Amino acid sequence: MAEEVRVSVDAMGGDNAPGEIVLGAVNAIKAHENITVYLVGSKGPVEAELAKYDYPKERLIFVESTEVIETGEPPVMAIRKKRDSSIVKGLNLVHDGTCDAFVSAGSSGAVLVGGQFIVGRIKGVERPPLAPLFPTQKGASILIDCGANVDARPNHLVQFAKMGSIYMENILGVKNPRVGILNIGAEEEKGNALVKETYPLLKSNPDINFIGSVEARDIPAGAADVIVCEAFAGNVALKMYEGVGLTMLGEIKGALMKSFKTKIGALLIKSSLKEALKKFDVSEYGGAPLLGLEGLVVKTHGSSKHKEITNSIVQCISFKEQHINDKIKEKISQKDN
Amino acid sequence: MAEEVRVSVDAMGGDNAPGEIVLGAVNAIKAHENITVYLVGSKGPVEAELAKYDYPKERLIFVESTEVIETGEPPVMAIRKKRDSSIVKGLNLVHDGTCDAFVSAGSSGAVLVGGQFIVGRIKGVERPPLAPLFPTQKGASILIDCGANVDARPNHLVQFAKMGSIYMENILGVKNPRVGILNIGAEEEKGNALVKETYPLLKSNPDINFIGSVEARDIPAGAADVIVCEAFAGNVALKMYEGVGLTMLGEIKGALMKSFKTKIGALLIKSSLKEALKKFDVSEYGGAPLLGLEGLVVKTHGSSKHKEITNSIVQCISFKEQHINDKIKEKISQKDN
Repeated sequence: MAEEVRVSVDAMGGDNAPGEIVLGAVNAIKAHENITVYLVGSKGPVEAELAKYDYPKERLIFVESTEVIETGEPPVMAIRKKRDSSIVKGLNLVHDGTCDAFVSAGSSGAVLVGGQFIVGRIKGVERPPLAPLFPTQKGASILIDCGANVDARPNHLVQFAKMGSIYMENILGVKNPRVGILNIGAEEEKGNALVKETYPLLKSNPDINFIGSVEARDIPAGAADVIVCEAFAGNVALKMYEGVGLTMLGEIKGALMKSFKTKIGALLIKSSLKEALKKFDVSEYGGAPLLGLEGLVVKTHGSSKHKEITNSIVQCISFKEQHINDKIKEKISQKDN
Repeated sequence: MAEEVRVSVDAMGGDNAPGEIVLGAVNAIKAHENITVYLVGSKGPVEAELAKYDYPKERLIFVESTEVIETGEPPVMAIRKKRDSSIVKGLNLVHDGTCDAFVSAGSSGAVLVGGQFIVGRIKGVERPPLAPLFPTQKGASILIDCGANVDARPNHLVQFAKMGSIYMENILGVKNPRVGILNIGAEEEKGNALVKETYPLLKSNPDINFIGSVEARDIPAGAADVIVCEAFAGNVALKMYEGVGLTMLGEIKGALMKSFKTKIGALLIKSSLKEALKKFDVSEYGGAPLLGLEGLVVKTHGSSKHKEITNSIVQCISFKEQHINDKIKEKISQKDN
């Protein structure tokens, strides 16, 4: 049997907690027998959800928490004050070595701040980036950083490039991943001050297969495997990707349901269209890992349904099996960053 | 008859020059009899295109240029050296008062730099922003700035908010336009240093109907009429919008052509789907105006076909008729920015 992977899961985070979170956790342990979930949440509601399912009880351990950090709360304060929240307790299970990873659909700010404060950074990593995978025409790319560190500096982006490359190479099996820097034009002299300073550092680094600037327009087609960026721009790119996708899907559905004729047409194209549009489903890849911590922390969408929770828990297996953090430690401790 | 509007058009700019540009110009003067086009370009190729069409000759004046600024050229140098390029000559026609506006699908950098150097800024405007209109579920929004001024400062964004509001109110007829600031979360304390400094300035300005932060995810649904941002983030948002749209359309077309069954289905849904997806066609609104100059400069996509060129020329009519620049002068000269 494969090595056991223990994942603490925030049962209280996100718009669909605890129902979808509990179901996602149950499905994950049913699908992979080397996963054990520590489900952290309020006793009554979580147990009521658990009662609905049959599952291997010995691999789902309930951990009671009595507080919940809300999305709007200032993260630093929330992490400090709400010691008995599902996020703080879940992260503590990684910090004390009980678990390998933590998955939450809750407050992004609290998960990011808590990840750094409680789980802690790998020595040498200056800023742990949030690094979602997202679908492209060629498969998937990683956009790093998408929200952890606004106003980053050039050397942070160099570390992001290294961590992103390790992730793509080991988790997705992309050999010698192509690294691009998010920019507003293809030429080397384009961009803001941060991009101009970072560009030569990436270009000269022997650990990085740097292919130059990548415009946001070319990301969905798969222009690079790893796209490094400052978190503000990355977050804008990611959320625009999601927003356009959702809005277009809505319009397409409306168009297909418009009349009797279109409904018949819709029946004929349904499966083919569904297959094509699946490529734009961000939930396929599970949540976004916060890289560079002494343990894995995964932030999933606030709107996560059970499938995304399951995928997020399952991605923790490869992260452990591929020894991602050992590889990050090795690369980041090198002097050339 | 309505007031005459004279537009100089760069016949040599963009991927489809001069063919599509010439056709776009011809269609514009045919559709609107108060438009006169000054078509700037190389004699041979432009005249060969013009020979294909019937059009009112007195309203299309050919202006010969012998140089072309290429996309990759450093803009400042190109504007200085290539005095006989279509961009420099076209902009000079606005500077000397021959024309009201200039339209180009050529090098963004050269158009932006040339607009500021040759046409000149309105007194008081610190940074003229590039402000594309783009389609949303509610109609259209303006994203300002999308590429003219990277690393902008808070007072620039306040000016962008004012200019964008004037544009939306007068060109699109949106009463009291809702202004949002592009941000990575909805709360006031979110964002990078620029956003945090700008937020209170927008909030306290009586000329601006400020509704707070807008996440990129909510832009396609029409979350605000005017979205102010620093140019790097704005450009990323805009290009991601275009990239996802194009990629999804490609996938949808592929899915519809997959088999005999899907082709039949496609016939049944075609017109309804086309109508729905038209909302995502960025060429519908013509090019992006560079606001705050002593004349109108419009940058269209490098990939512009004739329809976008026509729409870009036609948008110059409302710009002049609505006295947009007088309104900008009035608002920007106020002390409160």
